[in-house]
Amino acid sequence: MSNKYIDLSTLKYLLYDIHKLEDLLDRERFNDHNKESLDMFLNSTKDFADRELFPFIKEMDENPAHHRDGQVFVHKQVETMMKKGGELGFISASFDYDVGGMQIPLMAHTAAIYILDAANNHLPGYAGLTQGAAELIIHFANKNLIKTFTPNMLSGKWGGTMCLTEPQAGSSLSDIVTKANPTDKGYYNISGQKIFISGGDNQYAENIVHLLIARVEGAPKGTKGISLFIVPKNRISNDGSLVSNDVNSVADFQKMGQKGYCTTHLSFGDKGDCQGWLVGEENKGLSYMFLMMNAARIAVGRGASAIASAAYYASLQYANERPQGRKLSSEGKKNIEQNQSLIIEHPDVRRMLMFQKSVVEGSMSLVLLAAKYYDLENTAKSPEEKSKYNTLLEMIIPVVKTYPSEAGALSVNNGLQVLGGYGFCSDFILQQYYRDIRISSIYEGTTGIQSQDLLGRKITMNNGEGLKLLSTEIIKVISKANEFPELESYANILSHKLKLSEKVLNSLMPYALKGDFEKYLADATIFMEFFSLIIVAWNWLEIGINSQSELNGGKKKYSDIFYESKIETMKYFFDYELPKTTSQAEILMNPSSVTIKKDKEIII
Amino acid sequence: MSNKYIDLSTLKYLLYDIHKLEDLLDRERFNDHNKESLDMFLNSTKDFADRELFPFIKEMDENPAHHRDGQVFVHKQVETMMKKGGELGFISASFDYDVGGMQIPLMAHTAAIYILDAANNHLPGYAGLTQGAAELIIHFANKNLIKTFTPNMLSGKWGGTMCLTEPQAGSSLSDIVTKANPTDKGYYNISGQKIFISGGDNQYAENIVHLLIARVEGAPKGTKGISLFIVPKNRISNDGSLVSNDVNSVADFQKMGQKGYCTTHLSFGDKGDCQGWLVGEENKGLSYMFLMMNAARIAVGRGASAIASAAYYASLQYANERPQGRKLSSEGKKNIEQNQSLIIEHPDVRRMLMFQKSVVEGSMSLVLLAAKYYDLENTAKSPEEKSKYNTLLEMIIPVVKTYPSEAGALSVNNGLQVLGGYGFCSDFILQQYYRDIRISSIYEGTTGIQSQDLLGRKITMNNGEGLKLLSTEIIKVISKANEFPELESYANILSHKLKLSEKVLNSLMPYALKGDFEKYLADATIFMEFFSLIIVAWNWLEIGINSQSELNGGKKKYSDIFYESKIETMKYFFDYELPKTTSQAEILMNPSSVTIKKDKEIII
Repeated sequence: MSNKYIDLSTLKYLLYDIHKLEDLLDRERFNDHNKESLDMFLNSTKDFADRELFPFIKEMDENPAHHRDGQVFVHKQVETMMKKGGELGFISASFDYDVGGMQIPLMAHTAAIYILDAANNHLPGYAGLTQGAAELIIHFANKNLIKTFTPNMLSGKWGGTMCLTEPQAGSSLSDIVTKANPTDKGYYNISGQKIFISGGDNQYAENIVHLLIARVEGAPKGTKGISLFIVPKNRISNDGSLVSNDVNSVADFQKMGQKGYCTTHLSFGDKGDCQGWLVGEENKGLSYMFLMMNAARIAVGRGASAIASAAYYASLQYANERPQGRKLSSEGKKNIEQNQSLIIEHPDVRRMLMFQKSVVEGSMSLVLLAAKYYDLENTAKSPEEKSKYNTLLEMIIPVVKTYPSEAGALSVNNGLQVLGGYGFCSDFILQQYYRDIRISSIYEGTTGIQSQDLLGRKITMNNGEGLKLLSTEIIKVISKANEFPELESYANILSHKLKLSEKVLNSLMPYALKGDFEKYLADATIFMEFFSLIIVAWNWLEIGINSQSELNGGKKKYSDIFYESKIETMKYFFDYELPKTTSQAEILMNPSSVTIKKDKEIII
Repeated sequence: MSNKYIDLSTLKYLLYDIHKLEDLLDRERFNDHNKESLDMFLNSTKDFADRELFPFIKEMDENPAHHRDGQVFVHKQVETMMKKGGELGFISASFDYDVGGMQIPLMAHTAAIYILDAANNHLPGYAGLTQGAAELIIHFANKNLIKTFTPNMLSGKWGGTMCLTEPQAGSSLSDIVTKANPTDKGYYNISGQKIFISGGDNQYAENIVHLLIARVEGAPKGTKGISLFIVPKNRISNDGSLVSNDVNSVADFQKMGQKGYCTTHLSFGDKGDCQGWLVGEENKGLSYMFLMMNAARIAVGRGASAIASAAYYASLQYANERPQGRKLSSEGKKNIEQNQSLIIEHPDVRRMLMFQKSVVEGSMSLVLLAAKYYDLENTAKSPEEKSKYNTLLEMIIPVVKTYPSEAGALSVNNGLQVLGGYGFCSDFILQQYYRDIRISSIYEGTTGIQSQDLLGRKITMNNGEGLKLLSTEIIKVISKANEFPELESYANILSHKLKLSEKVLNSLMPYALKGDFEKYLADATIFMEFFSLIIVAWNWLEIGINSQSELNGGKKKYSDIFYESKIETMKYFFDYELPKTTSQAEILMNPSSVTIKKDKEIII
């Protein structure tokens, strides 16, 4: 098993040199931090991940979280992740000082958790959902509720979850039926079923604080009648002790991958004694939930990219150690007198590795960029600035969730292939990453849903203002690249692709304008693939500019080979990935509507 | 769990109506068969698969084949597959009468085993490898060896394997080191290690007959010094009883999928008492082995296509039963007063299902076509005819192995996505198919190796005569399609793509001519993707022609919707899959060589 799961230099390079974390530190909120302190945070995260996460990844796969006697049992490292992780600040680091946080930028926090995800993707979610749940309470609940629940969550003593999905509703939240009946005692009586609850229960947590959506009787139909509640597994009695709150673990879903991260079926109020406390106002639950959605989607993209990173280094090590086959002579023959070549010498293997590298580092850059927009929005100095970065974030967020998930899965697939038959064997880790990463395209809104969001909502929002703003950012990078003779041709390609995206949208938009949304959105997923490649190419071009400029006479924090490697990977992306947009555009501009149902069902 | 894993009508339609199995029955070899008898064979295969294979697929995943006390243990259905399957003729059906076969066309045999593969891909390999091993013996070994070994193999009493791979050699057979030392007693002493031996051992087989490649001392280096031996697990003593032949099961590889099909590490001659009998002549082993290779590669394509078929029907059933979400109104809103739609109504889900269907039926057609070429070659009435069909088979064989494996895996991936979160859960079968099918791109020469074979050997063979012959077949179908106004535009597209393939080859060929094979072959895998789509589009166009002609006034053996469904799936393939060739051609014609290693290693 490879010992390397992430390249810390690349992470820091993207964080500081490409996305300029230090520029953020001027903001008042982050005034107490500097590069040194953040570096220390990242380095100690890496130490923790090396010691407490990475060594347990196979074990957690082999010993899945499971349900027994009304309780979910998980691997012992879950306790370490929560309690030691809580101490190290993984739950609270980006929170305000006054609730016990460290006010570090989300960018730095994202980089840190990326390391944890790459080390062992089964563990960070326990802390991440606790953070998300606490964040909702802090943002929208009253002081009393904040005081009651969040300190134990931030320390990792208590866990937290988001309870959205129900068996009959799936992604369609307008159809949830969990009930909340008001009482005159300040709480609501909760009853209903929630499924797919990540981190839903475990034997180490003294308590688990569920953030649950439900309907109050008489609430409007659909998403406008959804309220948000705090529903702890155990409620706090008057003497401060914990008593059962009628939250029951019914089962734990057994899965193909990420087996150490429990996925629980919870039943609320089986005995009619489940109490929930309203967060904010009735019927506004979904809007509260959505405020956390961007962070949650960055987290899924981050996790997928991180698994792809771990897979990349595992297959790279194999390719560097495994001799097999020989280079062809100029007669096209193998010379059997020669020693076997290492497989990393073969162009076909190199193509697979470069694909992996381009996806891993491209998506890592994308995830950090999203976190940067988040920080810039949240520390904006003017409403205009706030709106600008909110818009940029909204524009890229479906891509940030989807590209690492989809391309990440393909890159792990290539990583497995590098190992040949061994890639399929349980003794090697690639097959586990192949299984683990597959959930990413489903979590937090499937690829289909993200694609509808991108094309249906984001592209059209404010009459296309968001797209214009994003294009301006891309054009800035193209202009900068044009200053380097080595990069000019790549700048031209990206500029051409940006124009192609206009052409594609001009061809699709008439459907939306005449109200034929079914046709407008039918190929949204293809549009997602198309748009993602352009966004990631933009990230790669920015990396190319920086690397070229360092090679041309910068301070060169890193070795020449480091920068050359970045430039070659950028070239790979432009030579092998970006060209796929040509075909995607062809498909998107084809007026045929073979996937739209006509009168008869032909899918048989 | 869906009960449907294959559409028998489609299988028979492709077999009889598209690929004209009945035309073959005129040949002397197949004279005793008619449509009725072959239909009966297929129907009884389906009954057997329903009863003895399909019900055990999850069980076999949950109870992997494993090694204990020097023995490999497998699921009890392995015994049923071998013994009842042997009785039903699955091992011997295509063999000559004089060795106990039924002389049925490989096409019909392939269709039958396709059914078994779709029902439970963990089982048919046991019979398939026994068939392959017996075939090698019958073709190349002396009468005495044939008489000694094959009757028990054809009845399923004894198993058979192919022992090629060694730990240090992998796909590079020129580097094998297993030794065979001649004795004066008619046998050779065998010693060495073989890994990844499918069906290598099990507790139900009285004996296992290994067909093993090894080097006789002093043999030429490389592939020219490889000899083929029969090495049974137990040898037959003078009194007819079986005695141990020093063939030892060392371990059984644990894998991500296809867990019920054992993958054994065998050690030969640990005690210096392992006897092997030479098949044919010394140093000709690899050429014998290669004679079986085409059939083996058809079998891998068949298995992958069949798994994709089972996955398609499982996700189709889910999509037809699961309500979720609503159709968008002309204002782009969901009307929550409406009932939820079934997910099969959503274009994004339909696109995924149509992709699955186009891959499943397109690859099924391709696999049957390969078997037909095989039959036509083997029953040819003249050397010219033999050479023609051999050439056609050689041309398509790398595609027949690779397209079902690669596109099949993507189609199962889409099938999993159709189920959303449930797709990732062990209670649903999709995640198992996702794991099972992944081996197909590795078996019998990885996708990389098949691609080198296609571009490096097949495209260039006899100065491109093979390609010309294949193009002629494609052009015939294009001309036929041009007679149907409904198909003309599709015929034109395929004709254009055929010209594009010439353009691509004209751009690549100069590298081969000047001896730069590294560059010529660097993107062979991209060429494989490109060429495969054209080949499968050709198959779909032929299906389109037949369906259109039936709808226009044929005898209509099947319902209108059956033919309409075929035409719509063809359109899907031309609208969504074939356009990918535009980008692939762009990549292939790009003179950049970023994947070829320069002086410094930049993949870090």
